[in-house]
Amino acid sequence: MTVPANATSATNADSARTLADPDTPFAVVDVRKTRRNVERLAARADRLGVALRPHVKTAKSLDVARLLHDGTPCPVTVSTLAEAEAFADGGYTDITYAVGIDPHKLPRVLALLRRGVTLRVLLDSTEQAAFVAEASRRAGLPVPAQIEIDCDGHRGGLRPDAPALTEIGQILHDAGCLDGVLTHAGESYFACTAEEQRLAAQNERDTAVAAAERLRAAGLPVATVSVGSTPTAHAAEDLTGVTELRAGNYVFFDLVMAGLGVCRIEDLALSVVVTVIGHRPEHGWVVTDGGWMAMSRDRGTAVQAQDQGYGLVTDLDGTLVPDLVMTAASQEHGTLTARDGAHLPDLPIGTRLRILPNHACATAAQHRGYHVIDGARTTNTAPAIQTFWERVTGW
Amino acid sequence: MTVPANATSATNADSARTLADPDTPFAVVDVRKTRRNVERLAARADRLGVALRPHVKTAKSLDVARLLHDGTPCPVTVSTLAEAEAFADGGYTDITYAVGIDPHKLPRVLALLRRGVTLRVLLDSTEQAAFVAEASRRAGLPVPAQIEIDCDGHRGGLRPDAPALTEIGQILHDAGCLDGVLTHAGESYFACTAEEQRLAAQNERDTAVAAAERLRAAGLPVATVSVGSTPTAHAAEDLTGVTELRAGNYVFFDLVMAGLGVCRIEDLALSVVVTVIGHRPEHGWVVTDGGWMAMSRDRGTAVQAQDQGYGLVTDLDGTLVPDLVMTAASQEHGTLTARDGAHLPDLPIGTRLRILPNHACATAAQHRGYHVIDGARTTNTAPAIQTFWERVTGW
Repeated sequence: MTVPANATSATNADSARTLADPDTPFAVVDVRKTRRNVERLAARADRLGVALRPHVKTAKSLDVARLLHDGTPCPVTVSTLAEAEAFADGGYTDITYAVGIDPHKLPRVLALLRRGVTLRVLLDSTEQAAFVAEASRRAGLPVPAQIEIDCDGHRGGLRPDAPALTEIGQILHDAGCLDGVLTHAGESYFACTAEEQRLAAQNERDTAVAAAERLRAAGLPVATVSVGSTPTAHAAEDLTGVTELRAGNYVFFDLVMAGLGVCRIEDLALSVVVTVIGHRPEHGWVVTDGGWMAMSRDRGTAVQAQDQGYGLVTDLDGTLVPDLVMTAASQEHGTLTARDGAHLPDLPIGTRLRILPNHACATAAQHRGYHVIDGARTTNTAPAIQTFWERVTGW
Repeated sequence: MTVPANATSATNADSARTLADPDTPFAVVDVRKTRRNVERLAARADRLGVALRPHVKTAKSLDVARLLHDGTPCPVTVSTLAEAEAFADGGYTDITYAVGIDPHKLPRVLALLRRGVTLRVLLDSTEQAAFVAEASRRAGLPVPAQIEIDCDGHRGGLRPDAPALTEIGQILHDAGCLDGVLTHAGESYFACTAEEQRLAAQNERDTAVAAAERLRAAGLPVATVSVGSTPTAHAAEDLTGVTELRAGNYVFFDLVMAGLGVCRIEDLALSVVVTVIGHRPEHGWVVTDGGWMAMSRDRGTAVQAQDQGYGLVTDLDGTLVPDLVMTAASQEHGTLTARDGAHLPDLPIGTRLRILPNHACATAAQHRGYHVIDGARTTNTAPAIQTFWERVTGW
C-alpha cells in the first residue's frame, strides 16, 4: 500500500504545523464544531427519552467516534463489515450493520459474535430470515436480526402491513434471532421545510411502531424499535414506542443539511483545503487543485432551492468568501465562480481556501483521514493542526 | 490504517479463488481487455509517429502500468505528486505532472529531480513561471516546465495568441526550464460523433502546434508538443508537429467512452462485483450492496443520448443482462431497474452481478485496488482471480 506523502507527514504530530503546511488537497475536521454537533443530538435524544446509536459511516473514524460518548464505546451503526471489525477492534461491542445481509457475509458476522460483539444484521425477506436462522442453528449462536421496515418508499424494507412481516418474524424468533425492527426515512433528505421534516419524523416513528405492534400482536417479542436519519432525528417531537435513534451525517453536517435547514453553514465541521493554481479571467474562473477526487462527484444540492455546485468557499480560517462557488470539477481541478455576477475576489496563485462539501459522507470517503483543527479563531496565522485521524476504508 | 478484510484476503494469491469468493462490493480488472485496449492505442501512436505518454491517473497502479510497455517503465503522465513518487519508486524516470504547479509543491518536485527523475511541471501564468525559475536557480537544478495551452475553453491554459505566452516562455527559458507546451481537449468528452472527435483532435493538434510555433518564432526552443485525451487520441488522423500523445481512461474505458463510440461496451475492462440483497417488486427494484461508495457518484452518461444511470449490469462472467440498469445509489445500496418496462430477470438474494461504470477514473478511485481476472470465458464456474493489484492513493 502506497502511503500518500501529505498524510504521513501529518501523522507525526507537530504542534507547529498549520493548515498552511500539508500539500493540498486534504480534508480537515473542526473538532470544536464536531463536538457541538454531537452534543446537540445527544441532548435531543435525552429529551426524547431514546438511546442514541450514531451511524459511523460518515466519519468512519474511531477518533471521531471517541467524541460521541466521552471517549467510551457506545452503541453504533455501521454500513460495512470492515467498519464493524474496526470498531470491534476498538472495543465497541454493540453494533448494528444496517445494510441487508447476504449469505456470503455471515461467516464474518459469526466471527464477530464469537468475539463477544453483539452484531445485529438487517433483512427484509423470508429467504434472508431462513439463511440467518439456519446459520445460527449450525453455529449454535443466534445472529441477532432486525427486520427492515419501509416508511417512505426510499429503498429497502417491508411495509408494516406486508404479509411477509410476521412470517419473517416467526422464522427469526424460532431460531432465537429476532431482535426488532429498523426503519430509515431516506426521503427526509428531500423534506425541504421544518414542517415536512417533522411529518417525516412522525411517519418514521409511526411506521416502525406499527410494524413492532403487528409482530407483538402475532406473539413475537420485539426488543428494538430503531428509527432515524439526520433530518428526522433533529425534527422528531415524540418517539413514544421507539427504543433508539440513529443518525450519521450530523457529526459533520454538510451543505445538503444546511439547505434543508437542519443546521447552519457555520456548523459544517468537514472541509477540504485547496490551493489556487490558475485563473481564467475571460471566463470568470479561479482554478484550484481540488477536483472531484478531493470533493467527490456528489451534487446533492443540485435538487435544492439553492444549488451550491460542488461546494462553498471559505478562507483558511473558515470564514465564507461571499458568493464564491465551486461550480465545476475534473479529477484534480476545481473551478470557482462568482455567483450571479458578484465580484470575483483577488485570489493569487498559491492562495489556500477551504471548500465546504455538499455531502460529508461522500467527500470524507475520498480521503484517507482528517487533519484536525480545534476551530478556535486565529489571527494572522493559519489554524494549527492538532493531529491526523485515519478512516476505515474498504468493505 | 485499517486494512479491509475483502482486500487482504485476496492478496494471498490463491488460484482456487474466483469472483464468487471475496465479499462484495469489489473492483475487478479484466487483464485481457486491458491489454487489448493498451495495444490498440499503442498501435495508433505508432502509426501516427508520436510517442505515447499514458496518463496513469485512471488505474493508479504500477501493476496496470506494467501492461503499457511490456513490463518496462515508459514515459507517463500523473495527476498527483503521490503518483509521481510511487512511479519513481517503481523505476519510472520520465514523468509529467499535468496539473498546474503551486509553489508549495516544489520541494517534492525538486526531491524527485534530485533522484534523477525527469519530472515536468505544468503552468500557465507568469507568476508560476517566475517561482519555478526562482526555485530552479536556488536549487541549481532546472525544473522542466511545460506551458499549458487551452484548445477548447475546457479548463486551464493560455490561448496560443495570449500575450503572456512568450513572456512565460522567456522566463522559463532564461532559467533553463522551458520544455514545451501541453494541451488537453477536455471538451472532446462531449464530442458525440466520430466527426466531432476528429475535429476535436485536429483542433487540439493545431492549437498546440500554433503555440509551439509562436514560441519558436520568439526564439524560444520547444522540445515537447504534448496533446491528448482518450477521445482525441483515438480520432487523430494527423499529428504533424506533435511529439507525444497522452490518454488515461483508455486502459479501462467506460460507459461514457462507449456512449461516444470511442470503444464498445465489451471493451470495458473495469467493473464492480455486487450482490443482490433485496427486492422491491412493487417498485420494480432489485437492491444490491453496491452503492455510490463502490461506484462513485459519477453520472457522466446523464448528458449523453443514452443515460446509463450509475451503470449497466452483467453476470459474473461479463455477459450483459439486457435492459437492466443501476438507476439509483445510496452509500452502500444500489437499485437496479429494468429499462422501458423490460422484463426484470429473476435475481435471487445472494446473486452476484458486475456493474460497468460510467467513469472508470471515478469508480476505480473508490477502491483500494483490483481483483484481476484474465477474461477468458468460463463455463459453470465464476472467473478465477489471478491476483490483487493495489492503487496509489492520496496526494
